Amino acid sequence: MKSEKISEAVVRRLPIYLRYLSELQSREVATVSSQELGQKLELNPAQIRKDLAYFGDFGRKGIGYDVAYLIEKIRHILNLDQRINVVLVGAGNLGQALSNYNTYLKENLKIIAVFDSYTPKIGTEINTLKVQPMEELHSTIVNNNIRIGIITVPAYEAQSVADQLIKSGIEAILNFAPTILKAPPYIRIHAADFTTDMLSLAYYLNNGKEEEMDDKLTDEVDH
Amino acid sequence: MKSEKISEAVVRRLPIYLRYLSELQSREVATVSSQELGQKLELNPAQIRKDLAYFGDFGRKGIGYDVAYLIEKIRHILNLDQRINVVLVGAGNLGQALSNYNTYLKENLKIIAVFDSYTPKIGTEINTLKVQPMEELHSTIVNNNIRIGIITVPAYEAQSVADQLIKSGIEAILNFAPTILKAPPYIRIHAADFTTDMLSLAYYLNNGKEEEMDDKLTDEVDH
Repeated sequence: MKSEKISEAVVRRLPIYLRYLSELQSREVATVSSQELGQKLELNPAQIRKDLAYFGDFGRKGIGYDVAYLIEKIRHILNLDQRINVVLVGAGNLGQALSNYNTYLKENLKIIAVFDSYTPKIGTEINTLKVQPMEELHSTIVNNNIRIGIITVPAYEAQSVADQLIKSGIEAILNFAPTILKAPPYIRIHAADFTTDMLSLAYYLNNGKEEEMDDKLTDEVDH
Repeated sequence: MKSEKISEAVVRRLPIYLRYLSELQSREVATVSSQELGQKLELNPAQIRKDLAYFGDFGRKGIGYDVAYLIEKIRHILNLDQRINVVLVGAGNLGQALSNYNTYLKENLKIIAVFDSYTPKIGTEINTLKVQPMEELHSTIVNNNIRIGIITVPAYEAQSVADQLIKSGIEAILNFAPTILKAPPYIRIHAADFTTDMLSLAYYLNNGKEEEMDDKLTDEVDH
């Protein structure tokens, strides 16, 4: 069941399914249809059925999906049925905001150490975590089996931080610096730069649609 | 050319193309091949050619894409050839971090107002923007033709903020609160919750791959 490679688009939707399914579970809802999921998550029900088919064909016609089973499956696929330690480098506003998310991450994924290169920040506390100097990065990662790194330093420092994380054995990086990082192919990097979110959102502004319609009319006249 | 609807996945890649192309332009590089783009952006060159084909077939064999032309096209498609005003609601750490990105947004997309409901924050300055009380939200949006809203309030406040933004005429929302917002179909909402980024990243950890291989072996023994 898990031997098939799951596409990145599907992997990115799984946490969204997981969040809503957990919400259903907390309301003691036992089953959910792809129609309900589709309406709530603004996805095509057919797309949802296709996504969930990766995990075996366990949606039942007229009954829907078993919420608890689906949660368990998705958590397993995402490796969330084990403890995963995370390190954050860059204790600025963004780093502080992200470590606040620890509260929301009910999953076994936790930021357990925060680093910064700026001396006055060393030793200050962020959400019960003491900011550590970069000199301690390697030993902290190795000794605590930290596997994911979050980069929230300025763009010009990001590559150097990534290199240090990778050298210390980090397997995956969430990069918030607005720059493209170089890394060996076995390291997974997700770019979480919010500027790309913002810029792609602009596409959907209404005048875009009006223009599209204008273009279409023009095209039709041209052809 | 623009009459064809562009898929969301492509729209989300356009800002990434745009960023790298702008970098090339600043280095006075005039043309780029899909191979080069693919290598730098970790995308399949065939995928890139397909994405860029939406804008007309202007890559030339052996020469590649004209950087300046591609930038102009992508900016136009994303509505970035016009000024777009943005409002941010929630002046906490995340809100402050995001307004720092204004510096990176060389585009015409700018956060021009920041709001918060917490009285002690009203009047304080974030990146030259004075934090305003929620009572001024509607008039500020209307008077300044603000079209995009960023939500960085806690989850339990997010829906109420979204409702106020929509009532004031906002067309698109970037939501950082870890909750699913309800909105009319003509409002575009992007969820930028970083927990989904983190959770999907966990899928790519190495033991996932090892387990997958174990599963495969087990499957093979079973069958």
